[in-house]
Amino acid sequence: MVKKPSLKDIAKKAEVSIATVSYVLTRGTDSGISPQVSEKIRKIARELNYRPNQIAQSLQSGKTYSIGLIVADISNPFFANIARIIEDEAKRYNYTVIFGSSDENAKKSADLLTFLVDRQVDGFIIAPAEHSEKQLKLLKKEKIPFVLIDRYFPNIESNFVIINNFDSTFNATKKLIDSGHKKIGMVGYDSKLNHMKERIRGYSEAMENAGSSRLEKNIKTVKFESISEEISLKIEELLLCEQPVTAILFATNTLAIHGMKSIDALKLSVPEDVSVIVFDASDAFDFYSCPLTYIQQPLLEIGTRAVNVLIEKIDNPSENFSKVHLQTKLVLKDSVSIKKPI
Amino acid sequence: MVKKPSLKDIAKKAEVSIATVSYVLTRGTDSGISPQVSEKIRKIARELNYRPNQIAQSLQSGKTYSIGLIVADISNPFFANIARIIEDEAKRYNYTVIFGSSDENAKKSADLLTFLVDRQVDGFIIAPAEHSEKQLKLLKKEKIPFVLIDRYFPNIESNFVIINNFDSTFNATKKLIDSGHKKIGMVGYDSKLNHMKERIRGYSEAMENAGSSRLEKNIKTVKFESISEEISLKIEELLLCEQPVTAILFATNTLAIHGMKSIDALKLSVPEDVSVIVFDASDAFDFYSCPLTYIQQPLLEIGTRAVNVLIEKIDNPSENFSKVHLQTKLVLKDSVSIKKPI
Repeated sequence: MVKKPSLKDIAKKAEVSIATVSYVLTRGTDSGISPQVSEKIRKIARELNYRPNQIAQSLQSGKTYSIGLIVADISNPFFANIARIIEDEAKRYNYTVIFGSSDENAKKSADLLTFLVDRQVDGFIIAPAEHSEKQLKLLKKEKIPFVLIDRYFPNIESNFVIINNFDSTFNATKKLIDSGHKKIGMVGYDSKLNHMKERIRGYSEAMENAGSSRLEKNIKTVKFESISEEISLKIEELLLCEQPVTAILFATNTLAIHGMKSIDALKLSVPEDVSVIVFDASDAFDFYSCPLTYIQQPLLEIGTRAVNVLIEKIDNPSENFSKVHLQTKLVLKDSVSIKKPI
Repeated sequence: MVKKPSLKDIAKKAEVSIATVSYVLTRGTDSGISPQVSEKIRKIARELNYRPNQIAQSLQSGKTYSIGLIVADISNPFFANIARIIEDEAKRYNYTVIFGSSDENAKKSADLLTFLVDRQVDGFIIAPAEHSEKQLKLLKKEKIPFVLIDRYFPNIESNFVIINNFDSTFNATKKLIDSGHKKIGMVGYDSKLNHMKERIRGYSEAMENAGSSRLEKNIKTVKFESISEEISLKIEELLLCEQPVTAILFATNTLAIHGMKSIDALKLSVPEDVSVIVFDASDAFDFYSCPLTYIQQPLLEIGTRAVNVLIEKIDNPSENFSKVHLQTKLVLKDSVSIKKPI
């Protein structure tokens, strides 16, 4: 890249001091410099295509009006849609959002955070990857405000906007039990992340609390990095055994997309052969033969609240954390069959 | 935000000069400063959580090892997937990718570019929005390398990695004609962007060159901002008229997703009632009752070539432009019926 024009270059060409140039370009009409000289300096700045050093400017105002957004996987529609909502809401406050994808990888997440911290974004909205606690502690130490979405770490005090994962799967599982299902499987991720543990716990408690008869739990987990390789086997374990499940709860929409393809491959029908509830909607199911019952996350509210909390914390730094818990909604479609008692 | 520790803070605490601190922290073991003093300075820097000014450092090396990626709409799977490929390829060269979404809006695109230019990314990969020519000219003037993907402006000399849009729709239309279809509609965007014009031109020429009989063209366009409102009407115009079309070519996957919902709403079946070819694959069609014939873009090659061209231009600035034209592939599935001559 060629050298960018500096204040010095302008000063030389305008035959004034660097300080004069700086005054004119940073203070506008309040500079106290004569209109003639001011206009001359501005004209030369335009000709040289001078761009004031944003970083230096922002050190004065203390703000860059920018937000860093780190999502787990930008090719997941949940995050792609949240990103759009966050961009739109931030735009209302004149904030620019730049984002990166951690690919559920703590190292990649750390690289992105460092990069954006060095470029002095005012704060972060983060869907944290597993093992990224250290990075969040560092942000806290550097007093850079951030808001977690989708997941959080119970042992790190922070701002967050999350949904009530336990209630969501508890209610979905209860719906299946109330519809007469006794053999209910759950497919989740093998993950230490709190939101996933809570989703599995919601299912487990509903199964354990199922009226008089404690139902047998059947939880299958796969690794995020190898869903497509692992899922067929897990679906077969649930459906091709001696006592197959009659219903499956998928812990995320990505798991459901892969899982439903495996169910299709076994030539099984929903809900005739197996009932299904999915955590999260997905465009992918718009064309599925049977409209799927799903747990609806309040995407718009998650995105807008995250932006609002973050901007509040940027403008009024405080040691108090905003902890926002939002409710999901079980949207009933046609994928849960009513089992008659035998 | 609290004030970040400076070289001065470290110098004060270590009781050495600022220059000494700077030498030690920027030159490592070659600083010529005694190991004892060096270690003392580094220890204090760690304690204060000092982070060297990335911008100042990069002015020395001339590189920040970062790429700005501006896509048209991050919630479109085409761009979300390209973003992933670009991230992965850039990572191989130790480049960080930060991205933003222009929402097909020139103003938003300009804001993002300015923001990232001020943060001195080394270069850009851009899927340019309509009316963004001025921004690209400015990048050229500032000698900031960039590579366009998906679209380009014929009147602006630049690096680009694009596919042959004309050939793609020409061949797809020819496939429909060769299958015996005479009434063929095309659904595209109302856009001045070159790639869209070329896709429509490919369809048009195939229709005009159709053997002995010049076929009647039937092109419907909708605005990007109002697809969902406009598309049903356009589909009805094509299918509920006196002489309905027997085949539709969709110019993008987003148009196809909306269009196929409209076809479903009319209770029409593919390919029995209407044959369909889509530009681009989409996960959304994985569960569609009929596997769709589609024009496959070489996503992996687009993403990796764009990164390779950009890094080449960052390392070896030149006035020569790399213009990469890639070929698509028509993937035959079951959505095109064979029409018998009447």
